[in-house]
Amino acid sequence: MPTADPIARAVQQLKRLPGIGEKTATRLVYWMLNAPSGTPSDIASALVALEDGIHPCSLCCNLTGSDPCPICADPKRDARLVCVVEHPQDVLAFERSGEYRGRYHVLHGSIAPLDGVTPDQLKIRELLARVGPGLDEVILATDPDVEGDATALYIGRLLQPLGVKVTRLAHGISVGTEIEYADAVSLARALQYRREM
Amino acid sequence: MPTADPIARAVQQLKRLPGIGEKTATRLVYWMLNAPSGTPSDIASALVALEDGIHPCSLCCNLTGSDPCPICADPKRDARLVCVVEHPQDVLAFERSGEYRGRYHVLHGSIAPLDGVTPDQLKIRELLARVGPGLDEVILATDPDVEGDATALYIGRLLQPLGVKVTRLAHGISVGTEIEYADAVSLARALQYRREM
Repeated sequence: MPTADPIARAVQQLKRLPGIGEKTATRLVYWMLNAPSGTPSDIASALVALEDGIHPCSLCCNLTGSDPCPICADPKRDARLVCVVEHPQDVLAFERSGEYRGRYHVLHGSIAPLDGVTPDQLKIRELLARVGPGLDEVILATDPDVEGDATALYIGRLLQPLGVKVTRLAHGISVGTEIEYADAVSLARALQYRREM
Repeated sequence: MPTADPIARAVQQLKRLPGIGEKTATRLVYWMLNAPSGTPSDIASALVALEDGIHPCSLCCNLTGSDPCPICADPKRDARLVCVVEHPQDVLAFERSGEYRGRYHVLHGSIAPLDGVTPDQLKIRELLARVGPGLDEVILATDPDVEGDATALYIGRLLQPLGVKVTRLAHGISVGTEIEYADAVSLARALQYRREM
């Protein structure tokens, strides 16, 4: 390498990130070298804090810096409603929509036997433990793909005998989609689950 | 923010990087949370090293972790040849080409009065100090734009009285360019500087 060690090392490390190749990593490193003093350390210390400060919420299993997480701790959130998602990022997506005022449960994956992910590796036991008199409805919001559907089916069968209402997120064509360009599977689902007007 | 502090803080910090927005920063943070333990700290410590370990080479002014930099310290590099570039990244580009065996001089910018960059802010004095009996040729490899051309002209005029050979990088159409799609300015230069075959 023509560059001295610390630059090459920083490029090497940044290249580990998804979607960041040699060129982008090099650009980021030289940007940091030209940035106001303290910039690389500020970014670095925020990354280190990820390692020490983050753990799963003991209630909803979302990744959080406090326990219970801010959503589970918020008395204004409706505790009778739990939305089950695959990943912490899905919680962010729901929060962005601004439509949901219940709580969440993060499974940390979906059942995928081909990838070696079995139900006992997901936070399903923790979800069942939350079912009780204070819980009215569980919304299964796993991804609308093979693994997500299988996971929803599996969890639904475990929950139904417990007397809690179980629902699945509506699937169909996205808002703003032109029918001409809608993918076949979404269109098929939109037909299958059509509502009366 | 629905996320707990350390995640939001890491997203905030990564968003400072050029070309990285909220979505990419979030994706990177959750990737790091799922990465093998120690990954964020490894990346972080490489960034911190950028701050402490990097300084300009006392000879060529390239950013380096050792002084003189590995290129200036390499006895196999031709010390009679100095290639003047605007940025440290330009050195990487020349090294990638594998064609150049001389040394470099990094100006750290180009003369741009409109942006407030005057000649005395560039490493021009340091370049003039390198001119002597051991130096045969200075190749001006500033960018082929208005600022780069002006910088080359300015430095060329300072160097010529010192009796050193001064050359400018050839400009023309890029290798692999179809003439049909070549930009007008490159084509004009290619005509202007045409060689006899």
